[in-house]
Amino acid sequence: MKLGSQETDRYSVYRALPYWYIASTSAALKKRPIKTRIWDTGLVLFRDSQGQAHALLDRCSHRNVPLSDGDVVDGNIQCPYHGWQFDGKGKCRSIPALCSALEGSSRDVPSFPVREQQGYIWVYTDTKSDPNHEPYMFPHKDDPEYTSITYQADFDGSIHATAENILDVPHTAFLHKGLFRGGDPNRIQTVVRRFADRAECQYIGEPRPSGLIGKLLSADDGEVIHFDRFILPSIAQVEYQLGHRELMTTSALTPISDFQTRMYAVVTVKVKMWTALLRPIVTPIALQIVKQDVDMLKKQVDSIKEFGGEQYIYTDVDVLGASITRLLSRASKSSIAIGTELGDPEAVITGELLA
Amino acid sequence: MKLGSQETDRYSVYRALPYWYIASTSAALKKRPIKTRIWDTGLVLFRDSQGQAHALLDRCSHRNVPLSDGDVVDGNIQCPYHGWQFDGKGKCRSIPALCSALEGSSRDVPSFPVREQQGYIWVYTDTKSDPNHEPYMFPHKDDPEYTSITYQADFDGSIHATAENILDVPHTAFLHKGLFRGGDPNRIQTVVRRFADRAECQYIGEPRPSGLIGKLLSADDGEVIHFDRFILPSIAQVEYQLGHRELMTTSALTPISDFQTRMYAVVTVKVKMWTALLRPIVTPIALQIVKQDVDMLKKQVDSIKEFGGEQYIYTDVDVLGASITRLLSRASKSSIAIGTELGDPEAVITGELLA
Amino acid sequence: MKLGSQETDRYSVYRALPYWYIASTSAALKKRPIKTRIWDTGLVLFRDSQGQAHALLDRCSHRNVPLSDGDVVDGNIQCPYHGWQFDGKGKCRSIPALCSALEGSSRDVPSFPVREQQGYIWVYTDTKSDPNHEPYMFPHKDDPEYTSITYQADFDGSIHATAENILDVPHTAFLHKGLFRGGDPNRIQTVVRRFADRAECQYIGEPRPSGLIGKLLSADDGEVIHFDRFILPSIAQVEYQLGHRELMTTSALTPISDFQTRMYAVVTVKVKMWTALLRPIVTPIALQIVKQDVDMLKKQVDSIKEFGGEQYIYTDVDVLGASITRLLSRASKSSIAIGTELGDPEAVITGELLA
Repeated sequence: MKLGSQETDRYSVYRALPYWYIASTSAALKKRPIKTRIWDTGLVLFRDSQGQAHALLDRCSHRNVPLSDGDVVDGNIQCPYHGWQFDGKGKCRSIPALCSALEGSSRDVPSFPVREQQGYIWVYTDTKSDPNHEPYMFPHKDDPEYTSITYQADFDGSIHATAENILDVPHTAFLHKGLFRGGDPNRIQTVVRRFADRAECQYIGEPRPSGLIGKLLSADDGEVIHFDRFILPSIAQVEYQLGHRELMTTSALTPISDFQTRMYAVVTVKVKMWTALLRPIVTPIALQIVKQDVDMLKKQVDSIKEFGGEQYIYTDVDVLGASITRLLSRASKSSIAIGTELGDPEAVITGELLA
Repeated sequence: MKLGSQETDRYSVYRALPYWYIASTSAALKKRPIKTRIWDTGLVLFRDSQGQAHALLDRCSHRNVPLSDGDVVDGNIQCPYHGWQFDGKGKCRSIPALCSALEGSSRDVPSFPVREQQGYIWVYTDTKSDPNHEPYMFPHKDDPEYTSITYQADFDGSIHATAENILDVPHTAFLHKGLFRGGDPNRIQTVVRRFADRAECQYIGEPRPSGLIGKLLSADDGEVIHFDRFILPSIAQVEYQLGHRELMTTSALTPISDFQTRMYAVVTVKVKMWTALLRPIVTPIALQIVKQDVDMLKKQVDSIKEFGGEQYIYTDVDVLGASITRLLSRASKSSIAIGTELGDPEAVITGELLA
Repeated sequence: MKLGSQETDRYSVYRALPYWYIASTSAALKKRPIKTRIWDTGLVLFRDSQGQAHALLDRCSHRNVPLSDGDVVDGNIQCPYHGWQFDGKGKCRSIPALCSALEGSSRDVPSFPVREQQGYIWVYTDTKSDPNHEPYMFPHKDDPEYTSITYQADFDGSIHATAENILDVPHTAFLHKGLFRGGDPNRIQTVVRRFADRAECQYIGEPRPSGLIGKLLSADDGEVIHFDRFILPSIAQVEYQLGHRELMTTSALTPISDFQTRMYAVVTVKVKMWTALLRPIVTPIALQIVKQDVDMLKKQVDSIKEFGGEQYIYTDVDVLGASITRLLSRASKSSIAIGTELGDPEAVITGELLA
């Protein structure tokens, strides 16, 4: 079973091939099973007796009741209707009323490969094939020299709309005025490099951001090093270096449905001073920026639904949008080797923008 | 007009042929007309000047306003928009603004055969053919030796899901633990007999139910006689005999829509003592059991809708589910003579379960 | 772009050709842009620096966000996401982040012809063709000898259902009993005249209406002169003359969607006395009548949706309903020259009714 594969009338073709997505934080999954959705398909997550996380299709094989409404008993998930039990691989382990032996696999529930790492539970969206790659590792998250801050948010919008928003520079001066950018505009060179599993834009000639975030990170003006990246299947990354300071925001996006995207963001910062102050100052600003984006994407997706589909135009300053579309489309047609060595880019596109 | 016949994109094929269903209790239909639905089609019920109940399509032939929003005037149902009046057969009897004579049948509203018996108003779901059988009679309901208790409930779930739930033994020990079953399980023989218009399961070797209901009905332990039956088009019946006591619950199911089912239940009890106590004790327990089932079927149907359809598996202990499917399917293809003499069963299937 | 032209699965064919509809009152459109819908398509209305009203498709050409969520800046409407600006013709005037010159028309937003007259903003529902006629002029509205009262209401119902309701005499005696008609019925002659762009019914032999409205308008009994008219694309007009008094209610209907209709009503009255009293007395009665009709049309449309479409029958006393259908249908197939000289009617149909 491949999530969403039978649902050809949906918006997205991006779901066609299996990839890893975050299904939950590790902290959110305790003794009780939890329900989540990826590509509009219900999954139940639960921990067995050893604490290992598992992901099954959230539908009892018997009478189709959600297993997430049941309990975990002896390390198995138990259906609340007739008490059938399934282990972490989806194997049926108990049918209370049955006199004969348990046999056959027709009673099993599809299970999905799971990896738990760096505080997140990742699920691979295919029950029938072995993953040909491992989930994404957040850079610096486990490095003691870095402070990391995490938050999550739900967007009404496709993976494409959400990733493009996160990596889009032009809207920041307008929508997030005062928080992030918004002073006199500067002419910035852009260099987009396209690789097999990712695209990145390097910004050349960008001064320190004029908003609060910029001032927090550096007392001095001066040029910053700035990269925006989209990495398949759904990682949006913003990297800043200001002198010896580094700020990286890596957002792993999970497609809850075609038009709902959950963002798991990890901010990693390398600074010499005030790490204790960092979290209480950065978090509310980040969440305020996120809220403005969430509100805007809701307006966007409502309009797209009302008009029966997207009708975008692209300009020189939409530097990564077209590359994201291209990568997602390619990833839906053939399995992309994710996380391989980069080598030379397939293409380099230069431009400029005011921000 | 046959209810639902034009709606080929719906879940159920069971609506294809006409049968009798309960549209209302007698007590609920007073001076005011009431609206109900069968197979997702609006019906207006009203009583004429003699008190006789009638059922029309709930749509004025003129401008399609629901007649159930009008009043009964001179024994006719009157449309609230222009005051057109229709008698119990749907014949147009008055058009206030019209100078010329009433004529033709194009102004009539389709009417459905109605029977009022045992406190219920039954409707036959075809306006064009005469019923080839009479509605179901609840056993013992009119017998003075029996006490009868009635209640009704709405299920989010198909006729099949609701009937199977009512007649399903394995879930009772788990979902209704303490109320009905749930002590140490017993090995019980099952004998399913299939007839043209019904299927029944006899349970052999079943001890007195361990829950409250069991204790109420018999002070003594001992084997019970227990039959579960499904009778076309939609009767689910549970019969217990404990010594000289008899407890029968007969549930007539009405398909409000493909996934909404109204249950009219009649409990008939033959006991020597405490008949006055019976109603206040049995009713709350029955309603608590029903509530647990209603909640579970809601979870089930939501999941079925989410996954785009049922995907059930059957085991030895789902003793009547497959027979119900088989009967409903057969009844949708050819008109079944309901209520005929049983004769020999078409098939007998034996098994066993733990409960 | 023609509103709704691509939406072939909707109820109405009436939207096929472009016509003028009221999008807003003049008073409602101030400094802030407002959103409205015609034929289910979102439009943004705004005033430029000179106060001139404009109507654009309410979707930014860039990322499809509704422009109506933005502000008017320097007479242009500004998108709230990236700050793109569009003038009253939909021409893209500013892309803040862009270094290169603005060029090409692919960035423009479709704009609709607008006329502001008599306190209303009219929109022509085609961006690609020049209007071949001008919007309807409300008679007497600018005449100092007449007092005019305006009100508006939203109906759940198609243009056809709303217009027929406004022009339907038979329901008034029943639904609006006591407010408008409803005493002993009179036999009234009806003469329907059909023209290329309109149909009217003349009522002969009608006494002064017996309800409150009638008494307000004339102290004396006596025959009234009464015409009901439907004028393409969506004007419903009721004209009364009682002696030297004249009362005309002209309702311009805007199709918000197939089943939502906004009525902009203008009542013009020519009376010698008590013009100051007219508004506070007539308005609440008119609104009470409108509320009864709004409630009834809601019942009607819910029923029509439930049964999957209209199934009407016509009688002699539905004097204008069939003519309205005929006109709307014809107007959807070929462009009708609206507001031309009437000449001889194409057809004259006589009848009678009781009211």
